[in-house]
Amino acid sequence: MDYKTKFHELIKKQKAYIYMLQLAGWDSQTEAPRESFARRAEMVGMLSGEFFKLSIDKEYQEVVNALNDSLGELDDLTKREVKKAKKQLDKIVKIPENEFVEYQSLLQMAQQIWEDAKAKNDYPAFKDTLAEIIVYTKKFVSYYKNDDHPYNVLLDEFEEGMTMEDYDKFFDALKKDLVPFVKTVLSAKDETNYEFLDNKYDIEKQKEFCDNLIDVFHFNRDRGLMKKSVHPFTWNTSPTDVRFTTRYHEDMVFSSIYAVIHELGHATYEQQIDTMWDDTVLNGGTSMGIHESQSRFYENIIGRSLEFWEVNYPKLRSLFPEQLHDVNLNMIHKGVNKVASSLIRVEADELTYPMHIMIRYEIERMLMTGETSVDNLPEIWNQKMVEYLGIKPNNDGEGVLQDVHWSAGMIGYFPTYALGSAYSAQFYHAMKKDFDVVAAIKANDIKKINDWLKEKIHKYGSSKTPKELLLEVTGESFNPQYYIDYLKEKYSKLYL
Amino acid sequence: MDYKTKFHELIKKQKAYIYMLQLAGWDSQTEAPRESFARRAEMVGMLSGEFFKLSIDKEYQEVVNALNDSLGELDDLTKREVKKAKKQLDKIVKIPENEFVEYQSLLQMAQQIWEDAKAKNDYPAFKDTLAEIIVYTKKFVSYYKNDDHPYNVLLDEFEEGMTMEDYDKFFDALKKDLVPFVKTVLSAKDETNYEFLDNKYDIEKQKEFCDNLIDVFHFNRDRGLMKKSVHPFTWNTSPTDVRFTTRYHEDMVFSSIYAVIHELGHATYEQQIDTMWDDTVLNGGTSMGIHESQSRFYENIIGRSLEFWEVNYPKLRSLFPEQLHDVNLNMIHKGVNKVASSLIRVEADELTYPMHIMIRYEIERMLMTGETSVDNLPEIWNQKMVEYLGIKPNNDGEGVLQDVHWSAGMIGYFPTYALGSAYSAQFYHAMKKDFDVVAAIKANDIKKINDWLKEKIHKYGSSKTPKELLLEVTGESFNPQYYIDYLKEKYSKLYL
Repeated sequence: MDYKTKFHELIKKQKAYIYMLQLAGWDSQTEAPRESFARRAEMVGMLSGEFFKLSIDKEYQEVVNALNDSLGELDDLTKREVKKAKKQLDKIVKIPENEFVEYQSLLQMAQQIWEDAKAKNDYPAFKDTLAEIIVYTKKFVSYYKNDDHPYNVLLDEFEEGMTMEDYDKFFDALKKDLVPFVKTVLSAKDETNYEFLDNKYDIEKQKEFCDNLIDVFHFNRDRGLMKKSVHPFTWNTSPTDVRFTTRYHEDMVFSSIYAVIHELGHATYEQQIDTMWDDTVLNGGTSMGIHESQSRFYENIIGRSLEFWEVNYPKLRSLFPEQLHDVNLNMIHKGVNKVASSLIRVEADELTYPMHIMIRYEIERMLMTGETSVDNLPEIWNQKMVEYLGIKPNNDGEGVLQDVHWSAGMIGYFPTYALGSAYSAQFYHAMKKDFDVVAAIKANDIKKINDWLKEKIHKYGSSKTPKELLLEVTGESFNPQYYIDYLKEKYSKLYL
Repeated sequence: MDYKTKFHELIKKQKAYIYMLQLAGWDSQTEAPRESFARRAEMVGMLSGEFFKLSIDKEYQEVVNALNDSLGELDDLTKREVKKAKKQLDKIVKIPENEFVEYQSLLQMAQQIWEDAKAKNDYPAFKDTLAEIIVYTKKFVSYYKNDDHPYNVLLDEFEEGMTMEDYDKFFDALKKDLVPFVKTVLSAKDETNYEFLDNKYDIEKQKEFCDNLIDVFHFNRDRGLMKKSVHPFTWNTSPTDVRFTTRYHEDMVFSSIYAVIHELGHATYEQQIDTMWDDTVLNGGTSMGIHESQSRFYENIIGRSLEFWEVNYPKLRSLFPEQLHDVNLNMIHKGVNKVASSLIRVEADELTYPMHIMIRYEIERMLMTGETSVDNLPEIWNQKMVEYLGIKPNNDGEGVLQDVHWSAGMIGYFPTYALGSAYSAQFYHAMKKDFDVVAAIKANDIKKINDWLKEKIHKYGSSKTPKELLLEVTGESFNPQYYIDYLKEKYSKLYL
C-alpha cells in the first residue's frame, strides 16, 4: 500500500476515536446525569489513551514523515493535509512526555486555583500559576518550532498565518480610529427607554421564538439539532451532524436569541462544508477567526439589523404582547444595539467588544515578549480599561481574572475573537458587491446569504487557509478598515 | 502480572469501547439527526472492529483459557466471571469467520425481507430466509457447544440455566390452568364504560404526569434521566448512568404511563446494582427474565393495582379534569386492566400476554426439534391463536410475521418475556412474607419495595444466576404456580 493511502487509512481510524470522544463530550455537556461523571471520566480516559497511542503510533509517524519528506511529489491538497498532520505530530512527539504530563497536572490545578482566586478577587493567589504556565508554554514551543518568536507560533496555532506584526497593525488601527469613536458614542445623548430589555419573558415562548430562528436561517434540521446547555456552543462531527445549544433566562430574552443566532452562524458554516473532507484532516471550519467571522456575521450583521427585525419582530411581539406593548421597531433595533462601557467581555456589545480583546492581546504580547511580568497585570489591566473604555474594575474578579483562557493555557486565542468580527465586515463588503444583502434580509431570504457563504467560504472546509480565503473572497488581504468603517457607519446612524 | 489482574485489566479496556458504542447507540435512538447515520455507521463500524479485535485478542484468549484451566484455584466470583468470559469467547472464536460474516449479511437482508413481507402480508416471501437463519443458528451452536440440544443452548443464552424441559413444564401449566381461565374471563359480562381510554390527552400534561412518576418510584435523577424515543427502552452503562425512554400519543395516555412504569422497573434494577461490579463482567442485570420480572413487577403488580391509583389518580384527574370527569377510581382500575383477545403481542393485556408467548415458544421448539418446517408456520400459528385466544389473524402481517425477533436471528428469546412475569409473581409472594406490600403501595412508599428488591436481587448484578436468585430469594426453584394463582386471583376479583 502506498503512503498516501496508508495515511488516509490511519487518519480514518483516528477519526473514529475522535468521533466517539466528541459524542461523549456532547453527552456530558447536554444531558449526562450528575453522578455519572466519575465512571465516564475513567472510560473516556481509557479511550483517549488509545487514541493518543494511535496519534503517535510508529507506523503513523513513519507515513507522515515519509510523505513530508517528499511534499514536492504530492498534489496540493494532500500536501496541505500532510503539513497539517506533521505540525500536529511534531507538537506531540517533540515535547518530552514527562514534561507534558507535569504540564497537564499544572493545568488541572490551575483551573481550581483560578476559580478560587476569581471568587475571592485574589489575583496574587493565581499569578505564580500563570507564570508557570507561561514558562511551560514558551519551553514547549521551543521544542517544536524555534525559528520564530514563541508568541508568533502560538498566534499561528489559533489562526494560521497570523503574527504579532499582523495583529499589531490590526489593533493599532482600532486604537487610532475606534477608541475615540467609542468615547463619542458613549457620551452621546440617548433617550431610548430600554426597560423592555429587562422584562420577564416566559421561557417556553422564548423557546418557540428561538426554534423558529432555525428555519429563518435555513439550518437543515435533518443534519442537526438545537438543545440546551449551561454555556451555548456548537458541536459537529461531520456536515451531516451539527448541533448547537443555547440557554434561557427569563429576564434576558435577547441573550437567548443572540446565542441562537451566533451559534447558528457557526453551525451553518459546519453544515455547508463539503462532506468530501470528512475522511481527510481538512474537515471542519478552517480557523477560529474564520469561524467567529461566520457567527458574528449572523449575530451582528444580520441579526442586529433593522431589516432583520422588520421581518421577525411581529413574531416576537405576538409571543410577548404585554412586554412589548409600547415597544416599536426602532426601539427594538436600538435595544439590541445598546452600547455601554462594561467590565465583562462576554457581556460587551458589538462596538465595545474589540476594546476588551485589545487589552488582552496587548497584555499577552507583553508577557510573551518579556516586556512585563505577571506581577503587573492587574495594574496594566485596570489602566487599559480606563484608557479604552473609561471604566475601572472594582476588583480583579471582574478584571484580570474574569476569563478562563489563561488558566487553561490558551495564550494566543483571544485576538481571534476580534479578528472574526473584522473578517466578517470584510466579507460583508465583498458580499455587497455581488448582491443587495440588506434587501435579502428584508425579504427574509437568508438562504441567498447562506448560498454565497457556502460557495465562497464554507464548502472548502479547512482546505484553504484563512489568508487564502480572504484573498480569494474579497480580493485583498486582511484589511481592518472595513471593520472600522462598518462600525462607524452603523453606530453613527444609531447614536450620532 | 498475574492472570487475574491481567484479565481485569483487559476487560476494563474492552469496557471503555463498549461504553462508547453504547453511548453512540443512545444518541442514535434518542436524538441523532436523520442524515447523520451514514457517517455514524462508518465510525461506529470502525470502533466496533477495534473492539472485536480486543475481544479475540491472543493475549486475552491466553488469559481466559489459563484461568479457565485452573478454575479450582479461583474464588467463586472470579470463577463465575471466567466461565462467563469463556462462554462468550468460545461463541466468537469457534465460529469460522467467513460463516459468521455470511450470516451477518443474511441477517442484514433478512431485516428488509421481513419488513417487506410483513407489509405485504406475504409469508412465503420470508420463509426461505427464516429457514436459512435456522440452519445457521443450529450449525453455529454445534461449533461451540455440542453436548446439548441446540435449542437448549439458545434458551440458556437468553436465560442462563433454562431448558426445554423447564419451559415445557411452565407452558404446560399455563395451558392447563390459564387457557380455560382466560376463556372464562373473556366471556364474562362487563358493563364498564371504557370510552375514557380513547379520549385525547394533551401531551405536555402527559409528560408532566410521567415526569412525576420518576419521583413516585424514587428513581435517582442524579444517576439517570428520561427522554423520548420511537420505542421505549432502558439504557445503562453503570448504576451511575441509567436512562430510559417513553413515547407519547395523544389518544393513548395509558400507553405512555405504562411504558414509563415498565422502563422504571428496568432502570431501578440497574440503578440499584452495586457499583463494585462495574469493572467486572458481572455488571448489569443478571438475565432477560430477571430483568423482565422487575419491569413487570413495577408495571403490573404495582402500577395496575387499585392502591397505586388511589394514590396517583388525583394527580391524573387534576391534569385532565374534562377527560376524566365521569371516571371514578374503580373505572380507572378496571380500565388499566382491561382484558381482550388481541392479535398483536405488544398490545396484549397482562392476562392474555403469556398466551402470545406460549404460541411462539411452541413454534420455535417445533422448528428447532424438526417437528415442523417453516412451510407450516402460518397454519400452526393461526390454529394456536384460535385454540388459546379464540381469534384468528386476517393475514400473516398481523399473525406469524408480526415480530422482528426471528428475522434478527433471536431464537430462544421469546419465552423470557413470559418467564419474567412468572418470576415477578414468585418474588411478590416472597416479598409479602416480609412486609405488607399493598399497604406500602397505598402509603405511596415505593421506596420500601425498592429497598427490598435492592437487598434481595438488584445489588448482586450478574454475580448470581437467575436460578440462584430465585432459590435464595423465594426459598424454592422456579414455580409457575405463583404466577397462575396471582393472575387468577386478580382477574377473578376484577371480572368474575
